[in-house]
Amino acid sequence: MTEKTALTPTTHTTPPARFSHGVRRGNVLQVAGQVGFLPAEDGRPPTPAGPTLREQILQTLANVEAILREGGATWDDAMMIRVYLTDVDHFAEMNDLYNAYFEEQGLTQPPAARTTVYVGLPPGLLVEIDALAVLG
Amino acid sequence: MTEKTALTPTTHTTPPARFSHGVRRGNVLQVAGQVGFLPAEDGRPPTPAGPTLREQILQTLANVEAILREGGATWDDAMMIRVYLTDVDHFAEMNDLYNAYFEEQGLTQPPAARTTVYVGLPPGLLVEIDALAVLG
Amino acid sequence: MTEKTALTPTTHTTPPARFSHGVRRGNVLQVAGQVGFLPAEDGRPPTPAGPTLREQILQTLANVEAILREGGATWDDAMMIRVYLTDVDHFAEMNDLYNAYFEEQGLTQPPAARTTVYVGLPPGLLVEIDALAVLG
Repeated sequence: MTEKTALTPTTHTTPPARFSHGVRRGNVLQVAGQVGFLPAEDGRPPTPAGPTLREQILQTLANVEAILREGGATWDDAMMIRVYLTDVDHFAEMNDLYNAYFEEQGLTQPPAARTTVYVGLPPGLLVEIDALAVLG
Repeated sequence: MTEKTALTPTTHTTPPARFSHGVRRGNVLQVAGQVGFLPAEDGRPPTPAGPTLREQILQTLANVEAILREGGATWDDAMMIRVYLTDVDHFAEMNDLYNAYFEEQGLTQPPAARTTVYVGLPPGLLVEIDALAVLG
Repeated sequence: MTEKTALTPTTHTTPPARFSHGVRRGNVLQVAGQVGFLPAEDGRPPTPAGPTLREQILQTLANVEAILREGGATWDDAMMIRVYLTDVDHFAEMNDLYNAYFEEQGLTQPPAARTTVYVGLPPGLLVEIDALAVLG
């Protein structure tokens, strides 16, 4: 049997339930929905990077990337990125931040596909992102 | 060609459209969005297990599991579980039920990744869950 | 390394950000969230096929299919179709259109699994659809 491996970067807070931040089996890697929580600190509850869309998106992308790396992958392996926003008016700014972030990543493969929809999230959270990767 | 197989547990009501409750091709298994409908009975329309979150989540998880099993998989093969709730206030109770359910499953592999978002669902339904599995 | 290929049908408008309309790596193909935009024309901004659910769903399915074909796949390879609607009252009509569309496709494999949820979308858009395919 091919093992399924849990991906738990040391920077991440403990999941609030029995799920993994990421799992990898064979060449498939799935990242759980990430939000803009800062790296975990002992004794501090999960804390968003800040109240702004900018702060939360950049932290969320960093949190997704940490899980990809923990599984031996990079953004170049990402096939699908799902972006959940709470407000349609955030679309343009999210795209600007998204584009700037990925320009800095120096991808050598085409960017992942993406779906963006507008949903409810817990109070204080403006964005959630998950990702599916297939390692090459 | 590798066949794509439809997964249709005998307990399930007929899908309301041309989709499969689950499909498997090779080692990839996808479970369609399940809700808390009771096992199908002739002449009875699809009927939720009850009005409470508890009843619906436990039935929904059972419905997902039936499809996994129909395809030769178990929860140990689940890579991603998507939980759609209608109310942010249901998050804590969902987590309690989710944790208790999976503790009873006796998993030998790490739990799946998960994303939870809050959306609209048809009247009377409080939760919908789908899952992606990769068999080991 | 297995290359990741971007799938960009000539009919499609440029994505509004650094994502691909579709990507394929090995036998996995992911289609990004598609909406009911007409085929791209120089100098015209992205334009929905019309204001009705019928027009938008048929165009959206055509847009998804164009990406599948660009990647050497067909609907027979689709494992999961995610349908995002904005209004629960659209479910029955969406199913009618969905069924009629897929009857015409002459599938030789079982239909894909599906999840339908109700979310917010940008003004004027009634539906968004994405798809995961595994080539046989």
